[in-house]
Amino acid sequence: MMHIRVPATSANMGSGFDSIGIALKLYNHLWFEEIEKGVEIEVRRKQLINIPADKTNLIYRTMVDFYAEIGKVMPGIRLIQEDYIPVTRGLGSSAACIVAGLMAANHLSGCNYTKDDLAQIAAKIEGHPDNSNPALLGGMVVGALDTNEMRYVKVDVPEKLRFAIMVPDFPISTSASRGVLPDEISRQDAIFNSSRTGLLVASMMTGNIDNLRMAMDDKLHQPYRKQLIPEMNRIFKASKGYGAVGAYLSGAGSTLMAVLTEDKAEEFEHKMSAYLNSMPHEWELTLLEPDTDGAVIISE
Amino acid sequence: MMHIRVPATSANMGSGFDSIGIALKLYNHLWFEEIEKGVEIEVRRKQLINIPADKTNLIYRTMVDFYAEIGKVMPGIRLIQEDYIPVTRGLGSSAACIVAGLMAANHLSGCNYTKDDLAQIAAKIEGHPDNSNPALLGGMVVGALDTNEMRYVKVDVPEKLRFAIMVPDFPISTSASRGVLPDEISRQDAIFNSSRTGLLVASMMTGNIDNLRMAMDDKLHQPYRKQLIPEMNRIFKASKGYGAVGAYLSGAGSTLMAVLTEDKAEEFEHKMSAYLNSMPHEWELTLLEPDTDGAVIISE
Repeated sequence: MMHIRVPATSANMGSGFDSIGIALKLYNHLWFEEIEKGVEIEVRRKQLINIPADKTNLIYRTMVDFYAEIGKVMPGIRLIQEDYIPVTRGLGSSAACIVAGLMAANHLSGCNYTKDDLAQIAAKIEGHPDNSNPALLGGMVVGALDTNEMRYVKVDVPEKLRFAIMVPDFPISTSASRGVLPDEISRQDAIFNSSRTGLLVASMMTGNIDNLRMAMDDKLHQPYRKQLIPEMNRIFKASKGYGAVGAYLSGAGSTLMAVLTEDKAEEFEHKMSAYLNSMPHEWELTLLEPDTDGAVIISE
Repeated sequence: MMHIRVPATSANMGSGFDSIGIALKLYNHLWFEEIEKGVEIEVRRKQLINIPADKTNLIYRTMVDFYAEIGKVMPGIRLIQEDYIPVTRGLGSSAACIVAGLMAANHLSGCNYTKDDLAQIAAKIEGHPDNSNPALLGGMVVGALDTNEMRYVKVDVPEKLRFAIMVPDFPISTSASRGVLPDEISRQDAIFNSSRTGLLVASMMTGNIDNLRMAMDDKLHQPYRKQLIPEMNRIFKASKGYGAVGAYLSGAGSTLMAVLTEDKAEEFEHKMSAYLNSMPHEWELTLLEPDTDGAVIISE
């Protein structure tokens, strides 16, 4: 069976709303096999919400659309899905499914699109490239989308950075998280985010880690979304108190992210875990390294 | 006499409103000398509007404020000002004066602040760092400002880029240019600019020049300012037609900027000059290289 691995991704990174995301060393594993007809799906790990094992499965639907788009008849598919990326927690689980489906269909069909081609397709499906780009390409990816195309640059992240995902026991749907956002914002807030997005990219690329605290500040989405996660600002403040160089809401939530240097990671984990235990909800903290490879076919 | 040279700067660069600017090889030259008392100012080149040769002179006022801030008595000053940066044309002539005044006062007072210190002071005086940073530091500088401090990263620009300044025969005051901007904008427009700012920085830093056309797009200020320069969109379109990789309104205007690669520069200059001659106003086109040094003391 063909074995594909796709990383978790953390989008927005504070200021880079709907455009910037980073891949992390936490993976879904998928196995694909052509069968005579139909679809057989085995979901190996039951998570918080059920992953459909029929034709409504997102990986399978992505493959069906891909074959339709290239005008080929799709074979029957057997799929084994072993997911470790938490679902509806703002860690790119949907993008990971779309990317896995595209990679599999691209390979099985013999279409052999490049990763760049697949990135264009994935961004169109998602409507924004901030999860699909890093899920495919690895690293931190800066993307912008217009009606015709998506442009992006993959950026190297300082190796000594660690990403502490703090995953709560409650999900937030993307539609709920988008529903609290205002249609209009002040020009000053727009300038605030735009300047910090530029600073975030330049600081990551030059290893200027002390800038990240300011560069990850945001006025476009987090101030509105904190009503969905009442602990948000307290946890951000505690994270910075325990040595994080920056903190942000991962994707549409509910995961909160703290960014650290390697040397502070152990102490942070110890102190922050204790702090999170004092919170009303259950929070699980895991320290992750950035992934630099993106989605890969591990074996054919 | 102490001889200081300060480069012209082009702020915003499309998407990077109030945060990003670039230094260009077009300079004001200033000479300073301590005298017994008072102020003597010689303005060597009369430009479109008169530069005051008395205590209201911006360079002199900046020096007075600097000495007051550090609590030292200011000596009398003789200043010779030989300006080549066009005034009220969006090429950083005010920032150049502030930077020159800070450099001179810093040196003459023996205060010996670093350029980083001076960048903080200049950004506070200007209210945004997009001209003062590159005027001081050279290169393209990405900056963000909060109430307490300014953070920035100096970015190397691909050497093969050329900047065609197209300077019209009419000025635009910064206050007029800010007056046409709305207080509120749509969230989508804010995301548009933020994503392009990130793409601009990453593309410059990786030499991904094909991205610049999209990365320099803007919805925060140029769409509103085009009423002040009716030819703006036509000139942008013509610039791209003649080979520019991007085009934008320089600072608050009135200069329009086209960005080119070196190999296209000669043909662009020829064709674009002819095109500009067909416009109702007079436009002067000059091709400039990026400056990488910023303000320098050429001799003491």
